[in-house]
Amino acid sequence: MFGDIYDVIIIGAGPAGLTSGIYTSRHNYKTLILEGNKVGGKALDASWIENYPGFPDGISGHDLMAHMEKQAIKFGAEIRLETVYGISELGEVKIVLTRSGGVYQSRAIIIATGVNRKSLSIKGENEFKGRGVSYCGVCDGPFFREKTVAVVGAGREAVHDVEVLSGTAVKVYAIPGKKGYSEDYPELRHLKIDPKIQFIYGADITEIGGTDFVEYIKLDGAEPGEVKVDGVFMVLEHISTLKIMADAGVETDAGGCIKVEGEQKTSVPGVFAAGDCCCKGFQIATATGMGAYAALGAMRYVKQLKSRLAD
Amino acid sequence: MFGDIYDVIIIGAGPAGLTSGIYTSRHNYKTLILEGNKVGGKALDASWIENYPGFPDGISGHDLMAHMEKQAIKFGAEIRLETVYGISELGEVKIVLTRSGGVYQSRAIIIATGVNRKSLSIKGENEFKGRGVSYCGVCDGPFFREKTVAVVGAGREAVHDVEVLSGTAVKVYAIPGKKGYSEDYPELRHLKIDPKIQFIYGADITEIGGTDFVEYIKLDGAEPGEVKVDGVFMVLEHISTLKIMADAGVETDAGGCIKVEGEQKTSVPGVFAAGDCCCKGFQIATATGMGAYAALGAMRYVKQLKSRLAD
Repeated sequence: MFGDIYDVIIIGAGPAGLTSGIYTSRHNYKTLILEGNKVGGKALDASWIENYPGFPDGISGHDLMAHMEKQAIKFGAEIRLETVYGISELGEVKIVLTRSGGVYQSRAIIIATGVNRKSLSIKGENEFKGRGVSYCGVCDGPFFREKTVAVVGAGREAVHDVEVLSGTAVKVYAIPGKKGYSEDYPELRHLKIDPKIQFIYGADITEIGGTDFVEYIKLDGAEPGEVKVDGVFMVLEHISTLKIMADAGVETDAGGCIKVEGEQKTSVPGVFAAGDCCCKGFQIATATGMGAYAALGAMRYVKQLKSRLAD
Repeated sequence: MFGDIYDVIIIGAGPAGLTSGIYTSRHNYKTLILEGNKVGGKALDASWIENYPGFPDGISGHDLMAHMEKQAIKFGAEIRLETVYGISELGEVKIVLTRSGGVYQSRAIIIATGVNRKSLSIKGENEFKGRGVSYCGVCDGPFFREKTVAVVGAGREAVHDVEVLSGTAVKVYAIPGKKGYSEDYPELRHLKIDPKIQFIYGADITEIGGTDFVEYIKLDGAEPGEVKVDGVFMVLEHISTLKIMADAGVETDAGGCIKVEGEQKTSVPGVFAAGDCCCKGFQIATATGMGAYAALGAMRYVKQLKSRLAD
């Protein structure tokens, strides 16, 4: 009924998952990476990456992720395009189920599923992705040096991106939406007195427009209803992606971020987590760092499990 | 008397420090990186790196670190070859002193000094560095697939490297030295029953020898006094490097590792730490991950400090 038992199954083939796969397969741990969407993850959306260490001239998200995929495959990691919908039997052998009917057994699991954000699906968002529409202030902010940008979003990360972008942009519009900020974040106090930052309350973004590149956004509820900007950062709140995590008993915080401790251990023995699903940094470099660290933890777990079984 | 106030001073120009510098300088934070030895850090010793994500064909430590240095300089980070001997005035402006008489002011500090290990300075160690002598089982273990290796060291990391290497090597000699293991590590129980692993107690390594590549080690206190190996992993315990950290009140654990919490914050406000000095992973990928994360923390700290001053 089952195939071989994998040492490590990695759920998600973004920067974190592929890095885990590079590590575990290079050390002879039988590794399967399951990806429900595209190998490379959200990093594929980054048209140009300047801050991943080791590429001084920059690199496209597509090329960087193709490199990581090649590297994982080179060492023997198996990658399958299947969407995971459940994890069960969280004992010494865990079972991972996929929508296409796959049933895989593994000793350790690394969750590297990234995050999904709420989407407003507004006019122009997809059209101008990579041409003024971005999803990460730390990643792309410096491309908008001395330009005017808007940050759309009401959560802590939106507030943080307003703060980050004010360091490089000439002007930042902070647009939490009609409901306002989710909490009275303490950072807001300092941002409100920053002359570069203008808060627009009581308004929702309805459209992103321009010709080749973003030139304006339209707002419902504000006067004027159109604001000129060079860039729009869509930093909406997470939606808790993985019902499977809750089912499996993997603890998350109120925001849906997986709680981890040393070696990226989750609350379930033998289950590790890495990358954006841990809500740390949201950078390719932080994701790969967590991916390597989770792999070290998973390898140690599997090694000790096998020794115990042989005991 | 003083020059300008830096936003961020980074102590150490290895993978962690250079990554921090890429991030902070790219976001217009005035950044100084101080390095007491060589830009690139211990990563320079890695003749070939297979597991840094993004380089499927591998890359030399020298080239990878040259890329990172170029990238940090490109965004405006200033790098000076000066050895830090003290940090004082840990208020809103911190003062960093160097042995060559430099006195630098900064709002935030990122400690990325790596670790120093005890050295046995045995015959042949330097001669065969990169030709059979290695300092990291996770990094270099897979180069010794189906070979025989020795792990010299008595601490937790030596035990961990014995465990890691047993996954790829055909035989692993574990040599803690005449004093034996520093603690009765629980992992040892499982390793002792692994037929691939042979513990040699009561003996110190005295020589590493071979022709082009390592071929044997000599032991004082064991019979036979010479053992054939293809590789020797020198995984000695840390020596607590930075008296300055203690003087500055930065908390470390008993092993000299800097204690950090979210965004790599140390126990001193405005002082962050990243890389091997935090004793997490000891991989280039984990170091760059921590470097990026520490930079995010330092930028946020400086931004809020400046807002408060303007308040």
